[in-house]
Amino acid sequence: MFSPLIDELMAALRCLPSVGPKSAQRMAMQLLEHDRAGALKLADCLVRAVEGVERCQRCRTLTEQELCGVCSNTRRDNTLLCVVETPADVLAIEQAGSYQGKYFVLLGHLSPIDGIGPEDIGIDQLLMLLDQEPITEIILATNPTMEGEATAYYISEKAQRAGITVTRIAHGVPLGGELEYIDGGTLAHAFSSRRAIT
Amino acid sequence: MFSPLIDELMAALRCLPSVGPKSAQRMAMQLLEHDRAGALKLADCLVRAVEGVERCQRCRTLTEQELCGVCSNTRRDNTLLCVVETPADVLAIEQAGSYQGKYFVLLGHLSPIDGIGPEDIGIDQLLMLLDQEPITEIILATNPTMEGEATAYYISEKAQRAGITVTRIAHGVPLGGELEYIDGGTLAHAFSSRRAIT
Repeated sequence: MFSPLIDELMAALRCLPSVGPKSAQRMAMQLLEHDRAGALKLADCLVRAVEGVERCQRCRTLTEQELCGVCSNTRRDNTLLCVVETPADVLAIEQAGSYQGKYFVLLGHLSPIDGIGPEDIGIDQLLMLLDQEPITEIILATNPTMEGEATAYYISEKAQRAGITVTRIAHGVPLGGELEYIDGGTLAHAFSSRRAIT
Repeated sequence: MFSPLIDELMAALRCLPSVGPKSAQRMAMQLLEHDRAGALKLADCLVRAVEGVERCQRCRTLTEQELCGVCSNTRRDNTLLCVVETPADVLAIEQAGSYQGKYFVLLGHLSPIDGIGPEDIGIDQLLMLLDQEPITEIILATNPTMEGEATAYYISEKAQRAGITVTRIAHGVPLGGELEYIDGGTLAHAFSSRRAIT
């Protein structure tokens, strides 16, 4: 409606998650009217990130180095290995700031119906790590979905056979959550996983 | 935390309106994990739009041509001129689809406190248009804020002196709006601007 270039920019902005037509329009106007320098900087960062960012050789998270910041940090505890589904999960756990071990990123979960088997999510690479590194505990932090649970179960079987302790992060009512607003599935899980107070 | 390139990309994404740290993180992850082609396309559109898009010579909206689509459209009614504050306002009115006249974009509003006078918002150029074109009615669609009202008042004075009919778009309760949820200022205006039913 405006001009082909602006229409194209608005369409391109919609590749961003949760950006619909109205947001794309507002973004395009804001950039062209008030922040052309920011728009050019963003374009430059996008190109450099797409060209530079690959997978960490060891844990498969996103990084532009051969080894990511966590894997190359010698002060991290390399007897602990936390297994997650995505790089965003690593970021969330790092931001929580309490975990000091290392990671392995599956980049997905087992899903036979979509033809995603153990090799597709790097379980062979994970088992190799268990051989090569002094890992004593695997902490499974896959999502509490059917596929995430199946993936956790599959890995725990393999790791236990290798004599490694396997744990699963706790699921239940979030801290600060009010029981009234928690979904039924979570609440049922919180009851069935109740712990004795000692 | 992840890698300098990804951190830089997340920072650059925050030039977009209403994108905070969490959204920027989700956008960066989504692009790098699932839509690298979209990211490159977006970068390309940003650069081309920033380099190509300028102001329409006549109405001052954003366009990459000398005259925008509305100004160069000979089927539009050139006796009507709608005055708005921003190119986004033009887009909103065009999307409503009922207005068939032309536009003039002020790119702001009068604001003596910020040193913004008539020349800064192109009122001289607007007055020239009134001389050159067969305009019979100016429709003032500046925002119903103090500055927008002052700007509308200033333009109406000038235009009436040139013998042109000046109108202001109606303000009041939006269609589909429920009185219960309308702010007091709007409601008071709706009462003071009530119309006789004939």
